[in-house]
Order: sequence, then structure tokens, then C-alpha cells
Amino acid sequence: MSAHHRISEVTITPVAFRDPPLLNNVGVHEPFAIRSIVQVRTDQGLIGLGESYGDRAHLARLRRAGEHLVGTDVWDLHAVERAVLTSLEGDDGSGGGGMSGMVAAGVSNRVFSPFEVACLDVQGHETGLPVSALLGGAVRDRVDYSAYLFYKWAAHPGGDPDRWGEALDPDGLVAQARRMIEEYGFSAIKLKGGVLPPDEEAEGIRALAEAFPDHPLRLDPNAAWSVETSVRIGRSLDGVLEYLEDPTPGIPGMAAVAEQVPMPLATNMCVVEMGHVAPAFRSDAVQVVLSDHHFWGGLRRSALLAGICATFGVGLSMHSNSHLGISLAAMTHLAAATPELTYACDTHWPWKEETEDVVKPGALTFEKGAVAVPTTPGLGVELDADRLGALHEQYLSCGLTERDDTGYMRRIRPDFTVPSW
Amino acid sequence: MSAHHRISEVTITPVAFRDPPLLNNVGVHEPFAIRSIVQVRTDQGLIGLGESYGDRAHLARLRRAGEHLVGTDVWDLHAVERAVLTSLEGDDGSGGGGMSGMVAAGVSNRVFSPFEVACLDVQGHETGLPVSALLGGAVRDRVDYSAYLFYKWAAHPGGDPDRWGEALDPDGLVAQARRMIEEYGFSAIKLKGGVLPPDEEAEGIRALAEAFPDHPLRLDPNAAWSVETSVRIGRSLDGVLEYLEDPTPGIPGMAAVAEQVPMPLATNMCVVEMGHVAPAFRSDAVQVVLSDHHFWGGLRRSALLAGICATFGVGLSMHSNSHLGISLAAMTHLAAATPELTYACDTHWPWKEETEDVVKPGALTFEKGAVAVPTTPGLGVELDADRLGALHEQYLSCGLTERDDTGYMRRIRPDFTVPSW
Ligand SMILES: [Mg+2]
Ligand SMILES: [Mg+2]
Repeated sequence: MSAHHRISEVTITPVAFRDPPLLNNVGVHEPFAIRSIVQVRTDQGLIGLGESYGDRAHLARLRRAGEHLVGTDVWDLHAVERAVLTSLEGDDGSGGGGMSGMVAAGVSNRVFSPFEVACLDVQGHETGLPVSALLGGAVRDRVDYSAYLFYKWAAHPGGDPDRWGEALDPDGLVAQARRMIEEYGFSAIKLKGGVLPPDEEAEGIRALAEAFPDHPLRLDPNAAWSVETSVRIGRSLDGVLEYLEDPTPGIPGMAAVAEQVPMPLATNMCVVEMGHVAPAFRSDAVQVVLSDHHFWGGLRRSALLAGICATFGVGLSMHSNSHLGISLAAMTHLAAATPELTYACDTHWPWKEETEDVVKPGALTFEKGAVAVPTTPGLGVELDADRLGALHEQYLSCGLTERDDTGYMRRIRPDFTVPSW
Repeated sequence: MSAHHRISEVTITPVAFRDPPLLNNVGVHEPFAIRSIVQVRTDQGLIGLGESYGDRAHLARLRRAGEHLVGTDVWDLHAVERAVLTSLEGDDGSGGGGMSGMVAAGVSNRVFSPFEVACLDVQGHETGLPVSALLGGAVRDRVDYSAYLFYKWAAHPGGDPDRWGEALDPDGLVAQARRMIEEYGFSAIKLKGGVLPPDEEAEGIRALAEAFPDHPLRLDPNAAWSVETSVRIGRSLDGVLEYLEDPTPGIPGMAAVAEQVPMPLATNMCVVEMGHVAPAFRSDAVQVVLSDHHFWGGLRRSALLAGICATFGVGLSMHSNSHLGISLAAMTHLAAATPELTYACDTHWPWKEETEDVVKPGALTFEKGAVAVPTTPGLGVELDADRLGALHEQYLSCGLTERDDTGYMRRIRPDFTVPSW
């Protein structure tokens, strides 16, 4: 075996897959979620896969970075990162966030991430090792995910109702949770909040607690609440929430809330890059960090974040956006190799049509809310050319080139403004 | 290539090599330094090397751990660590520190470390990659080390003078530095202090500064000074020292000094495991951490420490004990793959006789104070059976089974007590 697989070609393919009208603080999911599929080919014929956001500006950056990566050794991840940084020189950093403005993480980390994952995938194929082994070894053979509930409409305006139905009140949430847990077996529940007035969302949480007394519960209003509201609602949910996620914006705001509520505060909004860690930890603003390799700069950087959290006694969970199988595989390997990750991870997986993906079916399945960690080489997923082609066609035909939950909501409700309480 | 090299046999060989009478706060180096050489063999015939302390209790722990490691996958470093932890169950943790009481790091990290290094060495042989690549890629092809000066006697009592001569005053230090820099080309200088009264050591530093105006200087009294003395001497060396290393014991003491002296404080004494990081960083007690893979739990854990330091804006340097070629190789790969490590690393290398080692000569050489990072597979060093045998014989014949600088000093000067100022 040669030790020097070098990148010979990078292909970036934008894809779109159907997405239900999931509500959040800034608006509503559009009928399609867009992603980029990264293929890294080596001079010796191996292929590594990565997946990332699909926003136009991000796609352009991935393509530019891909050109700079040709010739780089897939094992030299520092060199891969340097090539990405070089490709970003002169870039003003705007756009391409992939999260409809809700999370503003560093550009270079976002661009580096899918290439790092793809290189680890190649390393796995080269050595015959699963990515979890390259990250130090799986400490568990199954990774728990949580039921990720959303307030939602029954259908996109003008579209057919999806199989999940409407959820705009406690009963709707409980029905949604029941179905999702029945189908997937999840043992923890997260509710995306910031949609209805806080007391109504607290009521929803209480209804879920009553219906699922053994399921840890989380509520994530995406920083839509004031410190005062956060404290009031937080206190009212004492003993009900496992953690309260990003009730209010900013490290100082979170620190003020953390001091006054009984439960841990979690975040994927005020700590989204290494520069945020010290100020947040020094002010005890957060007790749980939701890592996300897509914006933390890949799997190894996320493992570093895990180590930092452990060192400072801060908990670790995992954030998710709408994603396909490559990301699920990467998340699963990372979680498997991260001893510190003891919370069930977030995933949007159930919201995706089962038939829509870019990888061959069967490698990743849910049982009792968990995904078995692939033990085959690399990520353990294989690209399906037909499926990739179909989702790329769908990308072209759907016409979406940005994630814009707010713009979509405003096309439906012209008077919509991002609410805060 | 099979992906599942499993450990089939572990060999621990104690060795001894000649060591000059180097003085430090707790006493003086004995005529021999003792180390353990770890060989990890796999079921497919590969061998990985590690090196660690040679104290009797540590040797016993390494041997016990070695038995527990048989059958473990060399890539599953989490499993290797679990096996080490299992082997330590019921161990009271006493003894085996390897540093004559000066540094009290965690037992499990010390025992895990040489096995982690040996597994990375095997991984390198399996993949054809240097260890630096397995750590994310070398960001430099040469690693700078510093001239590590000691106050010393001309000879061990009853022994022949060594080639370095006596150094008990500024002139002796300058002569020692001149020779060491001439031979090795070092571009930074560290003085082991805590031996003479602080003002005399400060005088030594000033003499070095005058003789080597372009060489960054460090002084390490090994926590022999009070806060008051540390502040007084620290202030007197404003503009002269690159950093002041462990002037005083404990995180609160270091924090008090750090507040009042102009230069960064460095440590390998008050931050020696992850549990010390948060309290030290929260109180701004140290501005530079000297990592040491031998007591931080291996190369990957040291890389984690590097990331933590970078995240909190704390500098990173590297600590050394008397060591042989396996450790120098491991330190060099680690430093090469650690972008944050910008200080010249400590090494005791010049104090070792060139002819004494356990690895075949030629793989590691100093040029302009730096060691070229091996690019051959694994650590890039190969065990020399004859040399290993000779140093093992020397271990048996020298009769030392503990590092005991204080006991040796007391045999020479019965009234010796560890001084503090
Ligand atoms: Mg969130
Ligand atoms: Mg020191």
C-alpha cells in the first residue's frame, strides 16, 4: 500500500431533497433542503465523500477550495486546511451560512469540514478502517439520536399534506412525537421552539413530559427570548427539561440566564467556533455545547471540542441540520469515537423521505433510536450514482440556491417578522 | 493489508544510561538514568516502540498493563486506554513517578503513554505513514530544541570528570552554553534553577543574556521560590527572560506571581493533567504550558492539550526528562504536527553519551538546534538489539531501580535538605 494518496480531483454536486414545512423562529423550511455532496478522488483511484450546506456562496467556495486541493496528501489534514485557507484569500466571508442566518460560524471551518471528512473516508478505504477507528476507536457500537420535533403546517402552501400532519399545539406535538418514537424508537425528545409564544411552547413541553415521562426533553427557541423570559420559562420547567437550548442570544445573555435557571443551558448559537469557547466557559454561560462537524471544521476539530468540554466540565451534545446519509455516517462515527458525548444527538433524519438520499440504502438504519456504527472501511456509505443524479436534477429543477426560511415565510405571510419575546 | 493488527505480545525492558551530575532543586542526577523500553508486537509481525520512566513501580505497572493489552486492536486507542485502566484497578497509585518527586502526574496517563506511542508506531508501519501524518500532518520539517543548561559538578563523586566540566557560577554556565550551542546549534537556552540562591541564578541568566543576546532565555527553579521571591526576581529579569518556568508551587501561587511579573509564566508542575487546566486558566496562573507526552497520556492527548491551550490563548512549549531516541522521535513527531508549538522544545539529549541509546544511530540528528522530522514509517527509529541489550545489562549492573535525586545527594551530603527561598 502506498502511503501517499494524493487528491487528483474534487467534484462538488449540489442536490435537493424534499423537506416538510417545519417552523422555526426565522420562518419555515422551504419545500426542498439543499446540500452539497463532495467527492474527493485520489491518484490511486479511491473516493472519499463529504456533505455540507448547499447555499450558492458556499458551493462556490467549495469549488474554489476543491481546485486548490489537487495534489494534497489525504493524510496531511493540516495541508488540506492550508489549501482551503489559501482558496479563501480575498473572500469577504459573506453568505453561504447554510442555516438561514440562525448560526454564523466561521467560513473556513465550514469550507474545510466536508474535505476533512472526505479525506478521513479515503484514509479509511486505504487502511480498511472505519472512520471511528481513525478518530481513536469507537467507544460504543450504537449512537443514540433524539426525536427532533417541530411545529409544522400540514402541508406546504399549494402542496399535498405530508405524512406527519399539522403540529401547532400540544396535541399535535404529542401525536408527532408518538409517531416518530414509534417508527424510530428514540429515547429523547427535542422540540424546536421560538415559534409560538413561550408559554404555549412550555405547555407543549409539559404535554410531552406527561405523554413521555421517561424521555429526556429539550427545548430550543433559537435565541428568541429575552433574558427575563428565559428565566421565567426556564424556572417554570424545572425538573421537566434535560437542558434548555439557546433561550437567548449572546454569551452575556446566556450567562445571565444560566445563573437564574435550574437546568443546564445548551448552545449551538453562542459557541460556534473556538474563539467563543473561552469567553463562554469563563462566564459559565453554557453547560452543554452542541457540536456540529459541519461548522466546527470537521471530525477531528469536533473531537478537540469534545476534549475541551470534558476538560472544563461542560457537557457535549450534537447539533443537526437537514442532511443526507453522508452526514449521518460522519456524525455517527464522530459520536461513536467521542467518549464525552453522552447525550442523544440531534438529527433531522425522520423529516427526510426514506427514498431520497445520495448513498446506497441499508448502511445506516435506526433501531431503538440509535444507528449502528458502520464497521466497514471509511464512512461505511457508498455513493449511489442514480440517486445522486436524481437529487441533483431535483436541485436544478427546484430552483432553490439558498436556504431562506424567512424569505419563504414572507412569500406566504408578507407581514412576517422574526418574533422575539 | 489487514486493518486489524492486534497486539500479541508486549515486552518491557528496563535500561540505564550514563548521566552527569546535574543539579536541581531536589538533589542531583545519579550516575545512571533509568528508562523503560516498550515493544508492542502484533499478530501480523509488526513492532511498535515506546519509551517511559524506569522506576520499579512504573515498570511493574507497564508489565501488568502489557498483559491486559494482548488482543487489543492497535487502532483502537480508546480500547488500549481501557485495558490500561483495567490493569490499574486496585493500584494505590504510589511510586513510579519517574521524576524524583518533582512532578506528580496521573498514574494512568503515565502508564498509557508509551503504549499509545507504540500503537501509533505500529499504525505508521502498517500504513507507511510517519507518526506526524497520523497526528494530522507535519506543519514543519524540523523541530527546534533548546540548550538545556544545568548547574553541575565536574564529576560524580569518585568518578571521572565528564566532558562538560563544572558549572556552579555564571562563567561555568556561559562556558557550558557555548559548548552546547557550538555542538548542537541551539537557538534558545533554558537554565535549570532552584539550585543556588535566586539572586545568583539571576546573575547566571544575566551573564547568559550578555553572552547570547539573540537567544531567548528561560529559567526553571522548579517551584523553589516563594511568591515574594518569584516576584522580586521576575521583575529583576524584565526583558531578559522569554518565560519564567514554575518559580513557585501551586496554581494560586503561580497566579499571584503572574499578576506581578512582566514575563509569561510557564509550567510543567502545576498543570500536569487535564484536571488542572480549568483552574489554572481561569485564574490566569500560567501563560505557557510545557506539554510532555510521557505524563499527559500520549501524543494524541498532548495534541488535545495543544488545542486547548490555543483555544484559551495560552502558549505551548515542551518538557523533557533524561531520555533516549524513542522519546526524541516521539517528541519530534508530536511537535512537528502541532501548529501551536512555537517555542523551542526542551531536551536532555546533549547530556546523554552519543554512543548510548537503544535505537540504531543516524535517524535523529541535530542541525542548527533542530531535529529533522523523520519521514519514514512510524516513529522512524529502529530498535538496535545490541544497544538495547547493553543498556539493559547496564541497568542490571548499576543497581538503580528508582530515580532518587534527593537520596543520592544525601549519600554525598548527608545534611542536604531541599532548599527554598
Ligand atoms: Mg439549536
Ligand atoms: Mg520545568
